[in-house]
Amino acid sequence: MFSKQTYVDRRNALRANFKSGVLFFIGNDEVGMNYEDNTFRFRQDSTFLYYFGINKPGLFAIMDIENGKDYIFGDDFTIDSIVWMGPQPTVREMATQVGVDDTGTIVDLAELLYRVQRGSIHYLPPYRSEHYIKLMKFLGISPAEANSKVSVPFITAVGEQRNVKSEEEIAELEHAVSVTAEMHQAAMRYAQPGMTEAQVAAKVHEVALARGGDISFPIIATINGQTLHNHYHGNTISEGQLFLLDAGYETPLGYAGDMSSTFPVGKTFTDVQKEIYEITLRAHNGAIDMLKPGVHFRDVHLHAARIIFDGLKDFGFTKGNTSNAIENGAHALFFPCGTGHLMGLDVHDMENLGEQYVGYCGVPKSKQFGLKSLRLGRELKPGFVLTIEPGIYFIPELIDLWQQSGINSDYINFDKVNQYRNFGGIRNEEDILITETGHRILGKPLAKSIKDVEKERMIAFS
Amino acid sequence: MFSKQTYVDRRNALRANFKSGVLFFIGNDEVGMNYEDNTFRFRQDSTFLYYFGINKPGLFAIMDIENGKDYIFGDDFTIDSIVWMGPQPTVREMATQVGVDDTGTIVDLAELLYRVQRGSIHYLPPYRSEHYIKLMKFLGISPAEANSKVSVPFITAVGEQRNVKSEEEIAELEHAVSVTAEMHQAAMRYAQPGMTEAQVAAKVHEVALARGGDISFPIIATINGQTLHNHYHGNTISEGQLFLLDAGYETPLGYAGDMSSTFPVGKTFTDVQKEIYEITLRAHNGAIDMLKPGVHFRDVHLHAARIIFDGLKDFGFTKGNTSNAIENGAHALFFPCGTGHLMGLDVHDMENLGEQYVGYCGVPKSKQFGLKSLRLGRELKPGFVLTIEPGIYFIPELIDLWQQSGINSDYINFDKVNQYRNFGGIRNEEDILITETGHRILGKPLAKSIKDVEKERMIAFS
Repeated sequence: MFSKQTYVDRRNALRANFKSGVLFFIGNDEVGMNYEDNTFRFRQDSTFLYYFGINKPGLFAIMDIENGKDYIFGDDFTIDSIVWMGPQPTVREMATQVGVDDTGTIVDLAELLYRVQRGSIHYLPPYRSEHYIKLMKFLGISPAEANSKVSVPFITAVGEQRNVKSEEEIAELEHAVSVTAEMHQAAMRYAQPGMTEAQVAAKVHEVALARGGDISFPIIATINGQTLHNHYHGNTISEGQLFLLDAGYETPLGYAGDMSSTFPVGKTFTDVQKEIYEITLRAHNGAIDMLKPGVHFRDVHLHAARIIFDGLKDFGFTKGNTSNAIENGAHALFFPCGTGHLMGLDVHDMENLGEQYVGYCGVPKSKQFGLKSLRLGRELKPGFVLTIEPGIYFIPELIDLWQQSGINSDYINFDKVNQYRNFGGIRNEEDILITETGHRILGKPLAKSIKDVEKERMIAFS
Repeated sequence: MFSKQTYVDRRNALRANFKSGVLFFIGNDEVGMNYEDNTFRFRQDSTFLYYFGINKPGLFAIMDIENGKDYIFGDDFTIDSIVWMGPQPTVREMATQVGVDDTGTIVDLAELLYRVQRGSIHYLPPYRSEHYIKLMKFLGISPAEANSKVSVPFITAVGEQRNVKSEEEIAELEHAVSVTAEMHQAAMRYAQPGMTEAQVAAKVHEVALARGGDISFPIIATINGQTLHNHYHGNTISEGQLFLLDAGYETPLGYAGDMSSTFPVGKTFTDVQKEIYEITLRAHNGAIDMLKPGVHFRDVHLHAARIIFDGLKDFGFTKGNTSNAIENGAHALFFPCGTGHLMGLDVHDMENLGEQYVGYCGVPKSKQFGLKSLRLGRELKPGFVLTIEPGIYFIPELIDLWQQSGINSDYINFDKVNQYRNFGGIRNEEDILITETGHRILGKPLAKSIKDVEKERMIAFS
């Protein structure tokens, strides 16, 4: 937990955006896997963590703008709970640690909210079924209406505040990224032909758990890197294949790291793999080079897309005028996703608040295939933390769809592309802080050049 | 997945319990950790898995008793999903694999349910917020009413059927328990003074993940074994302490293993640790020896309690007439929980259906402290699978409460007990099948005698 003052200061900064009303924070509960008491690991709501810091289930908080008071509500444990769960701090004790003097039970919360005028209660977008149930129970808002009644001023204020990371947050993110690099290095030094993907994923997960945190999102550890969010780990890996790992550490305070690496299952990349790897790495480094305050992230993305399109043109996969191709989204056959996203307490920071507010300042996103998956489209500011992760993917289903429908056939050599339809995918990903004057790559360095990756792989075979 | 015929047979056996109405099965969804798309690992509902076998989110099933038809409902994936998640089978393809011919979309489900008379729709107890939302959406039942309208005939029929494990289920459980034993052995051979609990827990978790499944419940890996469900892993472990591990493997088909072991952080147990360990092991083996069809599990529990009470009497912790002490629940100061529970697709099998139905045949549970935590209180039948896990715990908060309140002071020597208030806790746990004539311990054997445990520990230091 950060210092008491940190949380007090964060709440005061938030309060300054409002003249009246009540801000209602819904903490998360535990979720049963296959019955109520067999729970997934507890994950507190990130906004609750940011302003109230308490990493326990069953809590709510209120900031009453008019009387200037902050409240935390929850029910204390019984002696029976102590037998099963050990001694537990009271709600009052936890609240004191984060500078909140006013606490109450869940019944007290219901009574307080009952007395407040409905329209003046601000809440953030629900993202779990439990949130819909709580909004119904405490505010009388039906699940069907809950999304339409979220508070845009609350979203915007939280988004702008959380987007700019403080010194202590940067230190925590730096730690998250360093452990993330350790997870990737462990995989590079461990994977062997004949293992399953699950064995490599298990090793990566172990590194995260052993450091006292957990993974910040489900691990992607696959020989089918062309499937962007592939969580299947059942394949046995073989010499000649590429292994794509996308994994990150979440610190006990809830801050995320997020990196991707791609390495050969054997000792070295094949020549064909090297060709494509070099293009993605060029796009990756080219995108990073552009990062500084005032740059629009869409331009960073389009720059990476151009490098990929041009690089692929050198080998005959693509053709025609690059600018026109990019405008028509032709790169998206190989690169159907975004170059990066904001990162913080959430690996896609504040995705639950709505990308259009947090990542796009309210400007509508493009609807073009590829560009619509770009999660960040605004000018960068000092204190932003984001990922850079352009990639090249050969997705058989997408190749067939485009070829059959004649999509972008002016820019794609489908004959050449089809020769690579079983190639897989390549991506590198790093986490970057926007500084006053430019940028800084966070965390311990991880091998990313072909030479350095092959050096790590030698260790696996030694 | 088991064979198509398995699922057809299971459904036919279930159908035979009903003359009319509709059985409504709610499959589980994915749950967002900190935003909707950053999900916990998917865990399908166990009853859905048992009758319909499909391990995917977003599905519902119906058994229409009157027309004899079974249905699966869900929405197919789009091309965008395939880019992100790879090629996905259609609902129809998945349904065919488990012998269901009739499928439909979620809209079709809503239309079908709309035409069915409300009172004739049977559903099982909800245990996630998403279930309450779905009951409201599809049946118009408010969260406040949902528990009171569950179908007891449906619960009872499922409970009696799932309680008796088939040959193929026993083979799957045997595998789950064997991997569980590997997880415990890995910890015994790995833990070292100076490590954190998290490092040991991470190693145990790695073994489960590497085998392609996951953990069947949150790992307990602690030097504070007296806290029964302790999920804190932040302590550094030292020579002289006891390490209690309670962890199990869940197979990809969803079947659970569940074992506990207790070992010294150093190479050997201290003499005092040996005294208490021998008593718990005697209670453990004594309970197992009793297991056979027709035996009432409450008697097994009370037998273990007597061994613990008598064993502690030998060392002066307890006193007085054993039968009277057990009747008054005096053993529960040291052994406040149950001797075991049913195990199958859920580690506490069908806990969500209600212990009173599944574990107690509808007979009310005792309200006595200790006995009220016994999850199983019925006569055993061939095919039942259950855990045996008596333990001895020194819980400072409970000792203080009983001493201050004079609870069972005729049977407890509090002066002696207080000398051990920082001792911690000890438990062994194994998983046992009730056979036609007796019982069989499932899975690979794991060290449990002092000699065998110390042998495993030698490997950690070699």
